[in-house]
Amino acid sequence: MSKIYVVGIGPGEYEQMTMRAANALKSCDVIVGYTVYVDLVKEHFAEKEFLTTPMRKEVDRCELAFEEAAKGKTVAMICSGDAGVYGMSGLMLEIGQRYPQIEVEVIPGVTAATGGAAVLGAPLIHDFALISLSDLMTPWEKIEKRLLCASEADFVICLYNPSSKKRHDYLQKACDLMMQHKSPDTVCGTVQSIGREGEHMEVMTLKELREKQVDMFTTVFIGNSQTKNIGGRMVTPRGYQY
Amino acid sequence: MSKIYVVGIGPGEYEQMTMRAANALKSCDVIVGYTVYVDLVKEHFAEKEFLTTPMRKEVDRCELAFEEAAKGKTVAMICSGDAGVYGMSGLMLEIGQRYPQIEVEVIPGVTAATGGAAVLGAPLIHDFALISLSDLMTPWEKIEKRLLCASEADFVICLYNPSSKKRHDYLQKACDLMMQHKSPDTVCGTVQSIGREGEHMEVMTLKELREKQVDMFTTVFIGNSQTKNIGGRMVTPRGYQY
Repeated sequence: MSKIYVVGIGPGEYEQMTMRAANALKSCDVIVGYTVYVDLVKEHFAEKEFLTTPMRKEVDRCELAFEEAAKGKTVAMICSGDAGVYGMSGLMLEIGQRYPQIEVEVIPGVTAATGGAAVLGAPLIHDFALISLSDLMTPWEKIEKRLLCASEADFVICLYNPSSKKRHDYLQKACDLMMQHKSPDTVCGTVQSIGREGEHMEVMTLKELREKQVDMFTTVFIGNSQTKNIGGRMVTPRGYQY
Repeated sequence: MSKIYVVGIGPGEYEQMTMRAANALKSCDVIVGYTVYVDLVKEHFAEKEFLTTPMRKEVDRCELAFEEAAKGKTVAMICSGDAGVYGMSGLMLEIGQRYPQIEVEVIPGVTAATGGAAVLGAPLIHDFALISLSDLMTPWEKIEKRLLCASEADFVICLYNPSSKKRHDYLQKACDLMMQHKSPDTVCGTVQSIGREGEHMEVMTLKELREKQVDMFTTVFIGNSQTKNIGGRMVTPRGYQY
């Protein structure tokens, strides 16, 4: 039976990949992925065959992976972060229905939420909600509802895709919605280029975050009512008495 | 300057650790942790000094780590999964205020949410909320509010600590709350002992989940309104047309 590994390679630098992910990449014949992610791993697996497709060609990329596997090759489809968090594992399993003879194994990785949290300190120690601000495939009303409900219940919130050229004011809109329930002084953090060259973190308040321009390589964290700024790091207490 | 690494070792099996985490463990003098987690890594780092404290002695464990570092040793404090998701990185940074001369570096790992998701298929592909059902340090009313708000906003929900001896009916209570907004036919999944001996997954409906007894080593996933059972795997679509 042919096999496809859907592999989360982690935030970027090679060391942040799990050993299981690296072993899957070593054992495969072909590595398929979005051009940018393939470039991140290429030097470590130079002897492999690489196939890439551009952004927004996700369906083509999955079909390419299944076609290669159908030839009898072992294939690894790589995703940044975790393959199962806004990644390709879902679409691979959906399209995989057409290829019942090909086994799909998902290999988890460190997603931007936990990778970025480690850079900031410990913002995600308690219950949190992960929300993508991209309305490419999700109606904005649904995103709005999730921002409001998560804020009302005092979740820590982590935002993926906080900005793009077309959506330059979405983070500001999101901050306004969250401030319906969260204090403007809520401790927040941003991490840019997690685990890559130029990694950069900042801790600020929610009202300061509202005025900030972030790029599409930034992950944004909004604390709960207990989150603190401890010496420039963002820390959400679990509740231990010390 | 003395240094403490707070290291997420992933779900359990050695291979699921990141290379960065393994390198930190290789480079340290002492490994500190909860007995069960220390046993998971011991054979791979046999030459190290190990110090353990039992469950519920988290503050003692952190202080032990700082005391060892204050002696000039490089210390690794290990946590299962990710150190920043219901892990020790928060408490370490809180207690670290008393030890300004000791640097704390957090190293992320694969948490049970993403590790378990990979076993089930792809339940966390879209916006999700992570909620612990443990009311040891969080009032039950707050947990209830989070379950209701997350369900109302159609988040995929992942539950940590779904059960214990004293809390045998908490998952049932949580299911009843979620069913105020989610259909009883919502696709759900459970994963027991992720990445360890006896790993076991099941996919079912929310009304079936309500009748299930799970143990404290189980992570529970409740889909959103779009989540599907594809050949026994739990898959949340991102929204791609294929």
